[in-house]
Amino acid sequence: MKKVVIIGGGFGGLAAAKELAKHSFDITIVDKTNHHLFQPLLYQVATAALSPGDIANPIRSIMRNRQNVKVVMAEITSIDKVSKEVKFNSTSLTFDYLIIAVGNSHSYFGNEGWEQFAPGLKTLNDALKIREGILLSLEAAERLADKSRHEEYLNFVIVGGGPTGVELAGAIAEIVNKNYIKDFRNINEKMTKVYLVEALPRLLQAFPKNLSAKALDELKYLEVEVLLDQRVTGIDKNGVHIGDDFIKTKNIIWAAGNKASSLLGTLGIELDRSGRGIVNPDLSIKDDPGIFIIGDAAACKDEKEKFLPELAPVAMQQGRYVAGIISKEINRTVKKSFKYHDKGTLATIRKGKSVAVIKGLKLSGLIAWLTWSFVHIMYLINFRNKIRVMTEWAWYFITNRPGIRLIVKKSNKDLDSWLA
Amino acid sequence: MKKVVIIGGGFGGLAAAKELAKHSFDITIVDKTNHHLFQPLLYQVATAALSPGDIANPIRSIMRNRQNVKVVMAEITSIDKVSKEVKFNSTSLTFDYLIIAVGNSHSYFGNEGWEQFAPGLKTLNDALKIREGILLSLEAAERLADKSRHEEYLNFVIVGGGPTGVELAGAIAEIVNKNYIKDFRNINEKMTKVYLVEALPRLLQAFPKNLSAKALDELKYLEVEVLLDQRVTGIDKNGVHIGDDFIKTKNIIWAAGNKASSLLGTLGIELDRSGRGIVNPDLSIKDDPGIFIIGDAAACKDEKEKFLPELAPVAMQQGRYVAGIISKEINRTVKKSFKYHDKGTLATIRKGKSVAVIKGLKLSGLIAWLTWSFVHIMYLINFRNKIRVMTEWAWYFITNRPGIRLIVKKSNKDLDSWLA
Repeated sequence: MKKVVIIGGGFGGLAAAKELAKHSFDITIVDKTNHHLFQPLLYQVATAALSPGDIANPIRSIMRNRQNVKVVMAEITSIDKVSKEVKFNSTSLTFDYLIIAVGNSHSYFGNEGWEQFAPGLKTLNDALKIREGILLSLEAAERLADKSRHEEYLNFVIVGGGPTGVELAGAIAEIVNKNYIKDFRNINEKMTKVYLVEALPRLLQAFPKNLSAKALDELKYLEVEVLLDQRVTGIDKNGVHIGDDFIKTKNIIWAAGNKASSLLGTLGIELDRSGRGIVNPDLSIKDDPGIFIIGDAAACKDEKEKFLPELAPVAMQQGRYVAGIISKEINRTVKKSFKYHDKGTLATIRKGKSVAVIKGLKLSGLIAWLTWSFVHIMYLINFRNKIRVMTEWAWYFITNRPGIRLIVKKSNKDLDSWLA
Repeated sequence: MKKVVIIGGGFGGLAAAKELAKHSFDITIVDKTNHHLFQPLLYQVATAALSPGDIANPIRSIMRNRQNVKVVMAEITSIDKVSKEVKFNSTSLTFDYLIIAVGNSHSYFGNEGWEQFAPGLKTLNDALKIREGILLSLEAAERLADKSRHEEYLNFVIVGGGPTGVELAGAIAEIVNKNYIKDFRNINEKMTKVYLVEALPRLLQAFPKNLSAKALDELKYLEVEVLLDQRVTGIDKNGVHIGDDFIKTKNIIWAAGNKASSLLGTLGIELDRSGRGIVNPDLSIKDDPGIFIIGDAAACKDEKEKFLPELAPVAMQQGRYVAGIISKEINRTVKKSFKYHDKGTLATIRKGKSVAVIKGLKLSGLIAWLTWSFVHIMYLINFRNKIRVMTEWAWYFITNRPGIRLIVKKSNKDLDSWLA
């Protein structure tokens, strides 16, 4: 049996594995974590609206009944194209076909020192870090006798006006500031402030202009201060510098840029500006028809020579496409190029309000929000997750009280040292 | 308005606060964490059957509608009986009445060095540490080419045969060894082994002898190796020493002993052997009728001069009793002593099998298990928790597949260093 190694158990990797498992291959999925993560809802874990277990599942549990799929929890550190093996921790796995689906991580555009003050949002660990930071800030403000220091804890700055930034800003303004704060006695909604900073002149670049404007309106309704055309020039433990301005805060979230995994650098192929691997039209790499890159790690152009967006549907379609090539078409001389079928893009700003482009149709408001909810629940990995998320959302919709507001990793000692 | 400070938001502290809130008092609950924890189900978080959010709730969210209750997240480090204040982190709170409901923590009987290898189970953090240790062990064994090293990862040792130890041993044997393991390809049920070590001649000392025997039978059915009358003599990173025997393992859980909080030492009163404060029959401390100790922190005797057990119902009844004294009876010369109404004791061994003593009636098997399930769901703090836990249990009962099996804090790097 030919060996296929898939690096990464995200949307692309899993789609490829599920398709390949139908055929006679010896498949191994290698992932740094033990779970597949439904990243589009990660911002709801960061704002304590959902539990980690609601949107994540062990990869080996998803693959349980596919007997020809093995799962290994490990971080691949290099790829050897000649000997056809991937290496991790003094071990290696050989392959006949390799699918690289490693996703991406945050880019701080050369200011890596900002990361410790402004975490990004890619993993469950990131989401829990942000969640605990927000919750601990409210506790800190509640304990502070010195009111002049409130703003450090009650200002929230989100950097980056793409879907993640917009969804986070909306969720913090709606859930944290208008809801959680009601459980406190010394602080109130008026003392909080959410800032969303975007370097370009409008939010949600991937959406049509009128939907960007709609999103801006909804954020303004939530009293989010949207700073367009403004660039963050510094971040430190006291806050964010934006040109000559300074916003005091302990709560900074980075949603401004991505870079691909450094693993791609070990392939010896051409990379694009953000480190993604340049691929052939069939998603294989140059001079190596058995090695493919899919998802956020691939720099893949559409027929108009535009790079495909870093979205789950792209990764999933690419995963299935590559599985098809491997299982059927590899020996053909002429392979059909990968073609992305754009079914739509969605982003949610607040309860009942989303923006969406579905097959060219521009939607906003409640209808877009219902579509968003339906699509997200539909794509959740299993029945259990669907039920859990639906129940949480229904609960929130009816009671207006979301909340898995637990502080577990951080402790009262962190609070003491903040307030010292 | 008279000030009441309650230290600890556990079963006792919350019961007292809810009762006192009906009267005209200025109440402050101080807790190290931001949440109330339903500790009796914590072992199910440790075995990944429930999510942290299913059994924990923010204390301030529980107290949201009680406007005369404030909540402060802080660790009280000393109590000054003369100036009537409690101190934390360069701040202090004054009180007219003080209720100390700080619970207890693990005791390693002088071998504090064992703690790093054998964590106990008191907090959500403890439970997640144990959960991730178990899950990472399975991943490690799956990755190991050298089969002779399997036992380090597939042996599980639980020290202490009280309810926590018995419930953990049963859950690991049932859920982890018979269920989770099916998702792996290189390891199987036959390679795993659960040990339960108890220094006394029988399990569950608080239960009648025939129920201890029933529990032992159920554990044997699950192939748990129960070592009675045997004492742990050493614990290190390689395993557990029991007399001359040695069990190789990275998975050791400590459920053998408790000690009260060191805060009680700052009161200048007599303490019992495990550091609990000796109280008057009305739960106040010697020479200070306005300071009370309740729950696991109190050494309180019943009419037969036997110490009351460290159980949630004791703490809750004491909380309500003390609230009653403070709100009504403090000026009376003769106060009614606290009397514990024992409604029963329960422990679960496996799906469908529990042991219980309810008002003198000894129950075992399915009927005890149904009672156990009903009682636990009934006492969960709110509707949302009840629904979540009920759904999870129903899911498990029907599908036999529990599982919030996420590894979040630990990473593939921990795995690498284990296997290096």
